[in-house]
Amino acid sequence: MGHSELRSAAEDIAFVLDRLGVGEALTRLAPYRDFDTATLVQVIDEAAKFSREVIAPLNAVGDREGCTFHDGNVRTPAGFADAYRQYRDAGWPSLPCDPSLGGQGLPVVAQIAVQELSAGANLAWTMYPGILHGAYECLHRFGSQTLRDAWLGALVTGESLATMCLTEPGAGSDLGQIRTRAEWIDAGDGVARVTGEKIFISGGDQDLTPNILHLVLARTPDAPAGSGGLSLFLVPKVLANGERNAAYCTGIEHKMGIRGSATCSMAFEGATGYLVGAPHRGLEAMFAMMNSARLHVGASAVGLAQSACEMAVRHAQARVQSRVPGADAHAPIAQHPAVWRLLEGQRVALEGARLLLYRAALAIDEAHHADTAEARAQADALAALLTPVVKAMLTEQAFLGASDALQVFGGYGYVEETGISQFVRDARIPMIYEGTNEIQAIDLLMRKIVRDEGAALGQWLAWGRARMNEAKALDTLGGFADALACLDDWTVLMPSLISLARTSPRAALCVAGEAMRTVHGLSMAGLWAQAAVADAAGGNKQRAARFWLKFALPETRRAMAIVAAQIKDPETAQ
Amino acid sequence: MGHSELRSAAEDIAFVLDRLGVGEALTRLAPYRDFDTATLVQVIDEAAKFSREVIAPLNAVGDREGCTFHDGNVRTPAGFADAYRQYRDAGWPSLPCDPSLGGQGLPVVAQIAVQELSAGANLAWTMYPGILHGAYECLHRFGSQTLRDAWLGALVTGESLATMCLTEPGAGSDLGQIRTRAEWIDAGDGVARVTGEKIFISGGDQDLTPNILHLVLARTPDAPAGSGGLSLFLVPKVLANGERNAAYCTGIEHKMGIRGSATCSMAFEGATGYLVGAPHRGLEAMFAMMNSARLHVGASAVGLAQSACEMAVRHAQARVQSRVPGADAHAPIAQHPAVWRLLEGQRVALEGARLLLYRAALAIDEAHHADTAEARAQADALAALLTPVVKAMLTEQAFLGASDALQVFGGYGYVEETGISQFVRDARIPMIYEGTNEIQAIDLLMRKIVRDEGAALGQWLAWGRARMNEAKALDTLGGFADALACLDDWTVLMPSLISLARTSPRAALCVAGEAMRTVHGLSMAGLWAQAAVADAAGGNKQRAARFWLKFALPETRRAMAIVAAQIKDPETAQ
Repeated sequence: MGHSELRSAAEDIAFVLDRLGVGEALTRLAPYRDFDTATLVQVIDEAAKFSREVIAPLNAVGDREGCTFHDGNVRTPAGFADAYRQYRDAGWPSLPCDPSLGGQGLPVVAQIAVQELSAGANLAWTMYPGILHGAYECLHRFGSQTLRDAWLGALVTGESLATMCLTEPGAGSDLGQIRTRAEWIDAGDGVARVTGEKIFISGGDQDLTPNILHLVLARTPDAPAGSGGLSLFLVPKVLANGERNAAYCTGIEHKMGIRGSATCSMAFEGATGYLVGAPHRGLEAMFAMMNSARLHVGASAVGLAQSACEMAVRHAQARVQSRVPGADAHAPIAQHPAVWRLLEGQRVALEGARLLLYRAALAIDEAHHADTAEARAQADALAALLTPVVKAMLTEQAFLGASDALQVFGGYGYVEETGISQFVRDARIPMIYEGTNEIQAIDLLMRKIVRDEGAALGQWLAWGRARMNEAKALDTLGGFADALACLDDWTVLMPSLISLARTSPRAALCVAGEAMRTVHGLSMAGLWAQAAVADAAGGNKQRAARFWLKFALPETRRAMAIVAAQIKDPETAQ
Repeated sequence: MGHSELRSAAEDIAFVLDRLGVGEALTRLAPYRDFDTATLVQVIDEAAKFSREVIAPLNAVGDREGCTFHDGNVRTPAGFADAYRQYRDAGWPSLPCDPSLGGQGLPVVAQIAVQELSAGANLAWTMYPGILHGAYECLHRFGSQTLRDAWLGALVTGESLATMCLTEPGAGSDLGQIRTRAEWIDAGDGVARVTGEKIFISGGDQDLTPNILHLVLARTPDAPAGSGGLSLFLVPKVLANGERNAAYCTGIEHKMGIRGSATCSMAFEGATGYLVGAPHRGLEAMFAMMNSARLHVGASAVGLAQSACEMAVRHAQARVQSRVPGADAHAPIAQHPAVWRLLEGQRVALEGARLLLYRAALAIDEAHHADTAEARAQADALAALLTPVVKAMLTEQAFLGASDALQVFGGYGYVEETGISQFVRDARIPMIYEGTNEIQAIDLLMRKIVRDEGAALGQWLAWGRARMNEAKALDTLGGFADALACLDDWTVLMPSLISLARTSPRAALCVAGEAMRTVHGLSMAGLWAQAAVADAAGGNKQRAARFWLKFALPETRRAMAIVAAQIKDPETAQ
């Protein structure tokens, strides 16, 4: 039994782009006709190098030092500002931006890869530029020409960073309860005074850029109640005329992890804000980039899990303890069956995560740029379907994977100096932010499955069925027949779940998590089939697919059994 | 759908003692004839009060301050030493000790309850006295009369605390690689000079007691290689004549959690040590108390999970967000299905954990004190069987449960001031110490199942089968038929697993974790059946049993499917 052969992230992403046709699919989209996979791989290799050489060395120090807050100003850990300067100078902020604005116009697939690599090196640091793409997208699509002329350039160059100011003490998952108000100074021009308190604002203040562009959800006096009445405002820290705007950081949180990322409470005290998009349509502007934002969270999680797994593999190959049954000499713990299971489980989970992540990212690119409206709509439905699965399942995998990696270290893993604990602590937050994983499961069930009667899901699973039928024909693979049987069972179960959700949504929501696990498992079965066929010669993905079928597919059956039990007997607690 | 009705730990333990016959079974053992359940419950209530009032208030401060190390001395966090003084003065250290030595002679069941309550209040603090029972037991059973006369009294009164010095940098799970040596000063009297380095020694130094009794595994010059050549020495920090012994703390670890517990590296520099038990039989003396020590770890985990769950329930009842489907007004998040699942899952896991924990503790008491040798042997086999399951499964449940509790808090959970993160961080260590959970699974499979051809397990599961047949007769319960079907499947599977373990131990060990999950699930099915029957009137345990059957039993099927797949196709990586 050998040690787990863990590929580097860049190498594995290249496989997905090259061998699973993601790169080729991109070149069929108008803006990416001139790209080829090799160019994308080159960008990814550059990102890997930058992450490894510039960002990763700041990971531990960021955790140890954390941020400090003094006199209204945040100081980030030593080296963070300098690394950002290098990042900006190398042009990374412009990656996804429109070439007509000086951007590089790269697809979401490429952004996601850069996010994965950067977050894997240092999630806390990555939080600062991590919101750039979203802020750019939001302003680019919804901002007036005046706003775009005034502020977009600084986002393209990375001269300014940005924040998303949604959460308030009384409004977390429930944005309808937002109380921050915006009073018009000039309703015609969309200029208002913004007043209120926001919490958990990542990068609400920092010392990386002179200006910060806050995107703030607020309620205008004429707004209807609930989330439908919210408007979005751009509130710069420093106004165009150089004046300091009344948007202040009032404190930072002392957190379990990502301690180098400043999580700020903010006070807007009649700050000047500029309406982005239509009044009362703030959520729409915010949610327009939600799929991409949530995929970024999933990508971060994969990056963390990769780094944790790499540490565990290195340790397991070096640490010699006890005999392995059947061998004479003491062996590296990587050769002990229990450790082998931990490491192989992580490796396969990681490679599987990328199959899903980059398929979802491609769907977003296709939703934006496919040639026909029908193709765009179909891709959009797939992106919408896969996004909550990516966000919730990949972040959970990363946390549990990092915890498994810690376990490989034994007692050493619990000592902070070893460094693995930081990954466990850092990996705990992606399960919460950008919509908790519970919110993702509700979103998947109610909005992505029930609303269209399972149409988009059915189409996606039909694709997977075709891949499994192809893979089944390969001699070396046995378990896809089981996976197809699971898929058959789900096909019978899904209409009952949809009707339960209509008649008794509470009962259905009690198993929303299991519905998500089922969709995840069935998605993975199709993706592993595709990978196994694509890698028939190399064999590495075939081995991983076999491992997945044997050790992970039973989880899909478990989840489905719970869904079935709830349909049969939909009681919930009184 | 109402909020989870979480009982207090003391209340739930009382149920187990009173209604599940644990208390009554104890009174059938000679030393406990005069006890009644009410007395035990009184002790437990006292322990709950002490834990709540004295120990719990030091939990957060212990985490914030941690221990400090200066000039060879450890300082524990503010209040720790004073709390220990109160603990000692109240006579808690003497709880399990022999009445002829001034002890209270309480059963392991009672010790485990005290451990659960104390660790739930403050695991870091509980680490200091947590080793007392083991050191007492070890010295009491294996020490010479001279040694007992000299040192045992201080352990009974708690005037001295103790450590177990096993781990070295090169010897973690593999104690055979221990290099600390003991050179005889007086072999006849068992006095030696002990020289070597130990790491991860909890309470290796502290400022709670003037003296510390180190129990040190070392190798004498004449010893054979491997773990069979180790001897156990008592190495006091301060010798009987008042001289400082050459046993020094050289540093403390900066850890992910239990930061108030001093985890020391120790240097023994020719320190005077007194042989405990026979030469080269050190592991035997150490392992004689292993079942009880590992149960203490399981108990700690249950305590942590209870405290985390209590915090989450309080938060979920107070935090109002969003509408619940079918209701008009915004509701406390406890009423949202996803949160309900998290909380109810934890409550049921906690109550189930106690069913298993106290059954295992009773088995240890019975193994010591049952009337006949046959009854003692049978109880000993059951204790040996259940111990690794308790240690591994309950510690994993506690970590995941604490993480679920954190999830209930959303973003607030990630902020250290909320306090829930500490439980997640603290709960990560019990999965590692006293034998990693992987070691527990190996122990269960190879030593507790394979060695006796599944005899002890078969007997235990037959008891469970009888309970399930009783519970099946109750109208309100449906799922025990499924559980019985699982048990039937396992009965067929187990002999194949045993034979795989004999022919290809590596292949069998690859699914040792799943074998453990299966044994755990089948054990719980029997215990839940017993609880449901016992609580037929009250109904609370019946509801919990139904929840467990519906939402947790499928996990047993999942694990069994993996075991079955490995038996069918026992390939492992090359």
